[in-house]
Amino acid sequence: MTQLSQARSGVVTEEMKQVAQAEGLEPEAIRQGVAEGAIVIPHNRHHAFPAVGIGKGLRTKVNSNIGASGYHQDKDEEMEKLRVSLRCGADSVMDLSTGKDLDEIRTALLAQCPVVFGTVPIYEAACEGSIEDLSPEDLFGVIEKQARQGVDFMTVHCGVTRETVRHLRAHPRRVGIVSRGGALLAAYIERTGRENPLYEQFDRLCEIFFEHDVTFSLGDGLRPGGISDATDRGQIAELLVLGELTERARKKGCQVMIEGPGHVPMDQIQANVQLEKKLCSGAPFYVLGPLVTDVAPGYDHITAAIGGAIAAAAGVDFLCYVTPAEHLRLPTIEDVKEGVIAARIAAHAGDLVKGVKGAREWDEEMSRRRKALDWNGMFELAIDPEKAKRFREESEAAKDAVCTICGKLCAMKLDSETNPTL
Amino acid sequence: MTQLSQARSGVVTEEMKQVAQAEGLEPEAIRQGVAEGAIVIPHNRHHAFPAVGIGKGLRTKVNSNIGASGYHQDKDEEMEKLRVSLRCGADSVMDLSTGKDLDEIRTALLAQCPVVFGTVPIYEAACEGSIEDLSPEDLFGVIEKQARQGVDFMTVHCGVTRETVRHLRAHPRRVGIVSRGGALLAAYIERTGRENPLYEQFDRLCEIFFEHDVTFSLGDGLRPGGISDATDRGQIAELLVLGELTERARKKGCQVMIEGPGHVPMDQIQANVQLEKKLCSGAPFYVLGPLVTDVAPGYDHITAAIGGAIAAAAGVDFLCYVTPAEHLRLPTIEDVKEGVIAARIAAHAGDLVKGVKGAREWDEEMSRRRKALDWNGMFELAIDPEKAKRFREESEAAKDAVCTICGKLCAMKLDSETNPTL
Repeated sequence: MTQLSQARSGVVTEEMKQVAQAEGLEPEAIRQGVAEGAIVIPHNRHHAFPAVGIGKGLRTKVNSNIGASGYHQDKDEEMEKLRVSLRCGADSVMDLSTGKDLDEIRTALLAQCPVVFGTVPIYEAACEGSIEDLSPEDLFGVIEKQARQGVDFMTVHCGVTRETVRHLRAHPRRVGIVSRGGALLAAYIERTGRENPLYEQFDRLCEIFFEHDVTFSLGDGLRPGGISDATDRGQIAELLVLGELTERARKKGCQVMIEGPGHVPMDQIQANVQLEKKLCSGAPFYVLGPLVTDVAPGYDHITAAIGGAIAAAAGVDFLCYVTPAEHLRLPTIEDVKEGVIAARIAAHAGDLVKGVKGAREWDEEMSRRRKALDWNGMFELAIDPEKAKRFREESEAAKDAVCTICGKLCAMKLDSETNPTL
Repeated sequence: MTQLSQARSGVVTEEMKQVAQAEGLEPEAIRQGVAEGAIVIPHNRHHAFPAVGIGKGLRTKVNSNIGASGYHQDKDEEMEKLRVSLRCGADSVMDLSTGKDLDEIRTALLAQCPVVFGTVPIYEAACEGSIEDLSPEDLFGVIEKQARQGVDFMTVHCGVTRETVRHLRAHPRRVGIVSRGGALLAAYIERTGRENPLYEQFDRLCEIFFEHDVTFSLGDGLRPGGISDATDRGQIAELLVLGELTERARKKGCQVMIEGPGHVPMDQIQANVQLEKKLCSGAPFYVLGPLVTDVAPGYDHITAAIGGAIAAAAGVDFLCYVTPAEHLRLPTIEDVKEGVIAARIAAHAGDLVKGVKGAREWDEEMSRRRKALDWNGMFELAIDPEKAKRFREESEAAKDAVCTICGKLCAMKLDSETNPTL
């Protein structure tokens, strides 16, 4: 039984209750959202942790991507990235490791992970050799193994098909394919002439996912990698396929969310969100960024925060962080921190305007404490209390009521003195 | 003669030609924009530098606020903040110094400033004593002196009046008044019963500004300082007054831009931009942020980049940066850098979607170089080449074509190998 199949049977699971409590909503509302597919609760039956809900009416969640690569393999560093992600408030962590010792890293991370845990199984299947030699049996073997290990959701690029790749190539792109999974599967299709096994054997995938209640994260292997490639034929052709597969997976009792772009100019973000909700029957939307410009390597946590905030406001449910290291190198521990905080800011800015329960109250209480010059109170409520406190304590005004920006000319102090009763 | 009066007489000034060349537009288009008041060219006749245009159809410009305070007075540090602002691409710098030696700091900065230079003269007038003792004659004396020194635009809070403050108090706010100039003038009004001299003697202000061609930056002294105070009666009452004053100043031949909020939730930003353009006859809009949430002290360059990007896309012409130190302390040199870069990202993201000439080409060329794995070419085009280069060079893949994120699984390399001709 999955969360979805139970919700449909009218059962309010323990996980639904946990989600309801965390969100300040009624358990029945969560059950209904899960039954409709508008909410997912990625929670593998082999992974014990307090359940997190993703979807309609819930707080926008944030994922942190960690993981080693062939160039840089250091399990301890990845464990520290996990700890930093948790400390900064990530709701989910994906292990995107490539290279060696993948099982060792994954099981170590999973054992310490009290939040949602995701993977991209094709990385493990493809790390072994050339993509032309990819064995569908091996790929399904990897997926089944990871499902048994307790992975809560998996990115599977089922929409990269002969047909969608044909659409992509019919209208060539500036940056081509930028998703690793997408590029691997497109290369498999184009070099061998065979169909994507994740598409061809989708029902088999559903059976594995159902058994362990792994949530589908239907990957956007053909997502745009540059502003000028956004919302093109290849991307939309893939989204159409993902919509069909959403229905098929749900019929099999599997939970589904949809992954989205990528690099998107600001004026196309809302259309992308509406399109996903429409074509994929209201499935939760999980976006990477989107990055609203290509020109800021070193600052893509900011380009992604701009896009992510607009996306969240427009109905996106789950933001994948982007770090300052994007496009340049694997993130360091500090980059992970910057990435999670920037994504949380974007998520909350969106929550403020889509009416998520409790979002406004956080800002209103911060405003109240700011007006009262209650510095410790402000630090407590800050998204990163440590940095806020450190910045203030570095300054010459640390012991005074005001700060070094305005000093004696503090507008709030002056205004309160003029109107002591307000 | 001001840029405006000359534009109205059909004269294309040297400054209009410089703006036209920088923007890749026709000088006559700039003249027309200036004549209509949709473009300003803040360029005091005593300050020699290549002119910068702000307004309709032009690249969104970025301002960096620097300046000492009573707590922290270090002229050399402010000079360094000026240099860093210039190096990072600020189009304008405001000296917001308070405390002592204001003339010395201002003249030193102005002498080294090859971009637009702005001030808030009431800081100097009010630094001397209690606000109740503010002498209108002294205030006008300060304004006239700064105009002679070569200040290109001045923030004057002419819209803080007995009437607008009454509107503000009729509907109490959570954070009250957060603009220093606004709080000073409201305190003057409420404590003495007198009217704001900048409003009462607006014609006198116009005469000074006309003589030296100082551009009005009509300040938003009643701007919201918290999400829940946004777009309230006090703010809109002030904007109405600024609209009237815009017309009066233009009739006197003075250039005008309007300052805007502040703290604004994402879904009210576009309304704020439309309202300003409508009520102030299309005057360029200069916004501080806007910050889209209150809860992220230490990261307000990001909350401001989100709001600034949305604002720029909606028609805002000029973004005032916000640094990570906002709400906590005076910015350090590093904070200034972070602030300018974040604001430039926001401005460019907006330019991409409002169709500013040349904006798309920048991203397209970056995408081309990214696809070609042309790392030096990418650094050249990066908004901060030094950081992009440093991040990559810190990594183990610095000498290779690919990067440490994907290593051998590089999607772009794989895709190019599959399709070498695309």
